[in-house]
Amino acid sequence: MAVGEYPFPVMPPVEGVSIGIAAAGIKKADRNDVLLFSLCEGASVAGVFTQNTFCAAPIKICREHLQLARPRLLVVNSGNANACTGSSGRANALSVCDQVASQYGLSAAEVLPFSTGVIGEPLPVGKINAVVPALVQSAQEDNWQLAARAIMTTDTRPKGATRQIEIDGTTVTVNGIAKGAGMINPNMATMLGFIATDVAIDQTVLQGLVREAAGLSFNRITIDGDTSTNDACMVMASGKAGNKLIADPHSDSYAALKAAVNEVCIELAQMIVADGEGATKFVTIDVKGGASHDECLKVAYAVAHSPLIKTALFASDPNWGRIVAAIGYAGVENLDDTLVRVHLNDVLIVENGGRAESYTEEQGQKVMSGERIGIHIDLGRGDCSERLWTTDLSYEYVRINADYRT
Amino acid sequence: MAVGEYPFPVMPPVEGVSIGIAAAGIKKADRNDVLLFSLCEGASVAGVFTQNTFCAAPIKICREHLQLARPRLLVVNSGNANACTGSSGRANALSVCDQVASQYGLSAAEVLPFSTGVIGEPLPVGKINAVVPALVQSAQEDNWQLAARAIMTTDTRPKGATRQIEIDGTTVTVNGIAKGAGMINPNMATMLGFIATDVAIDQTVLQGLVREAAGLSFNRITIDGDTSTNDACMVMASGKAGNKLIADPHSDSYAALKAAVNEVCIELAQMIVADGEGATKFVTIDVKGGASHDECLKVAYAVAHSPLIKTALFASDPNWGRIVAAIGYAGVENLDDTLVRVHLNDVLIVENGGRAESYTEEQGQKVMSGERIGIHIDLGRGDCSERLWTTDLSYEYVRINADYRT
Repeated sequence: MAVGEYPFPVMPPVEGVSIGIAAAGIKKADRNDVLLFSLCEGASVAGVFTQNTFCAAPIKICREHLQLARPRLLVVNSGNANACTGSSGRANALSVCDQVASQYGLSAAEVLPFSTGVIGEPLPVGKINAVVPALVQSAQEDNWQLAARAIMTTDTRPKGATRQIEIDGTTVTVNGIAKGAGMINPNMATMLGFIATDVAIDQTVLQGLVREAAGLSFNRITIDGDTSTNDACMVMASGKAGNKLIADPHSDSYAALKAAVNEVCIELAQMIVADGEGATKFVTIDVKGGASHDECLKVAYAVAHSPLIKTALFASDPNWGRIVAAIGYAGVENLDDTLVRVHLNDVLIVENGGRAESYTEEQGQKVMSGERIGIHIDLGRGDCSERLWTTDLSYEYVRINADYRT
Repeated sequence: MAVGEYPFPVMPPVEGVSIGIAAAGIKKADRNDVLLFSLCEGASVAGVFTQNTFCAAPIKICREHLQLARPRLLVVNSGNANACTGSSGRANALSVCDQVASQYGLSAAEVLPFSTGVIGEPLPVGKINAVVPALVQSAQEDNWQLAARAIMTTDTRPKGATRQIEIDGTTVTVNGIAKGAGMINPNMATMLGFIATDVAIDQTVLQGLVREAAGLSFNRITIDGDTSTNDACMVMASGKAGNKLIADPHSDSYAALKAAVNEVCIELAQMIVADGEGATKFVTIDVKGGASHDECLKVAYAVAHSPLIKTALFASDPNWGRIVAAIGYAGVENLDDTLVRVHLNDVLIVENGGRAESYTEEQGQKVMSGERIGIHIDLGRGDCSERLWTTDLSYEYVRINADYRT
């Protein structure tokens, strides 16, 4: 199950970023499950990573390698997360880095490793290393759709988004792919996102850009409240577009690039929600009128994480009592319940501490029967607002997660 | 579905506490759905209430009436929560108070009202007031099982627990009934708990006792993380047992009473979990080795609320990777993942940042296939510990909550 249609877009090549693909048989035979991004010399790479204490070995290595060298290769496998695998997990991830680095005459520190899949199983390092030559041979700049498919786990469809903009009179391309369907919660989702652009940009400036873009997109989606051990969002910039190097985050060039990257990231984040495990609804939660951004987020997450609201969404039941209950327990201090207003799409359902007089069950039912539902909450006590996206909770979610390892 | 067998115990009468029962047809015809506790003069009553901002009208009235007078009557209905019902909800609850008070020549302030059921629907006050004479006529001291049945909503079985102890050479009885099966989360669960004892105890001392008992029982269970608008746990003490008035919380009498009340409350709380909506497993989560109680609770709740862990429990799948992921994102600062140890019952599954060398899938499978599962987590950084109880997440949970209003 998944909400809506998201046909994979036509993605132009990004000069200076080639992509190799191979089938290592990590979890299933004859399925592409390893991916190698190879970057031209001089490329900038920046990223944000999971906040989970039990982060996977490859995440720890990424953080270290980014301190040591400018990355030239990003190697990604699906089917195994190499998380909670202790010291052998680290050795395995480093072995893969070594293997791909040697093919290009680079050092292991110039390689960033990524893994996604089941936690706690040893990485089948022999299988991965065996396909490294195939990764190198298959490398092409227009392998984006194959790449998006190779990183899927419980995803039902590949996720890609693309934009082209003009900077300094030259065309700049921003491509992105992502995977993720469950264990989705901010900081970060169980997701991998790889954004590539041919823009020329300073590495430090790029780091600020990816942090902001992730904050507006991947960190604003939630499916089940679980935060993965393996999440990462990387932005690679080859510098081949021919624009003047972007070194000032207050420049027009930066603003134009940022807008394009944000759009790509938000589009990918929404695709992850729409493909949420067992999702039958795509839900936008807006909270405004807050005294702080923090309290807006508290309310938004309380609503987004409530299993009672999520099952009511699944049932297309306008059970607004569960929404106000969640607002009430979100932990906003001294909230005046008589000032809170709640709309379902454009239908006012709650005001003055109870059901709106104008509201009819028929109106609520009409909104809830749709596939896209907006829950708009006004706390009536300030000027801050926040938005996030989530899904319902269906039988299918339980089935997928009860069956995942079997 | 429900875990285990909990036959309703034989509950002796509590002198000075009589219980009237009636069928008002609030949600279903011919089902007892209103309950009246009538207390002898001089009884003490204390309670704890939901922390939800959108608390129901009856909860607000309870808090006010407890400031004004010593309660003599507690009137309870199931089938309608009278929550999020604005000013008419308040008027309706007060009307019921008036009606029962007038039957006994008391003032409305001597009545505490309680409601549980669907949120946001007007309380059918006419139906309730019509059965007030029947409540009075049916009042008896041994109506405990009928009372436990009358307050059920999605509960599959009535919940009662009882203890008798000796204080000052006289026998003291502690009876308790509770309802609750979903929307269960601390502070408080969607639950009502009514404890009655014939002990003689000072009202202020009783208030301290109920707060502590609720903290160890009803505030340590979670089914879905949702906190209701209507929860309350009340303790009524008639003073008829003939013991010397308990006025010192450091006395032996107080300690003996406290132990009995705690046992009754914990037993009721565990019954609520075992009857959790769609529950097929009863799960005890112990976190020890914490630097603070707060961080132990954070970890315990992260594990208890994770839909991924809950679905794995439902599937009897020892997917320990999801447990360590939840520990990792619980928000414990500077947690050293290599010091964390996790047992499933007595099977060591995680140490040194990964799967324990001694662990076999067979061992884990054996634990998970049972109906009662312990998840024991040692954070390895201090002396604090916390315990709570929860359930799995099943198809049946989704079905119950997707169908509740229809």
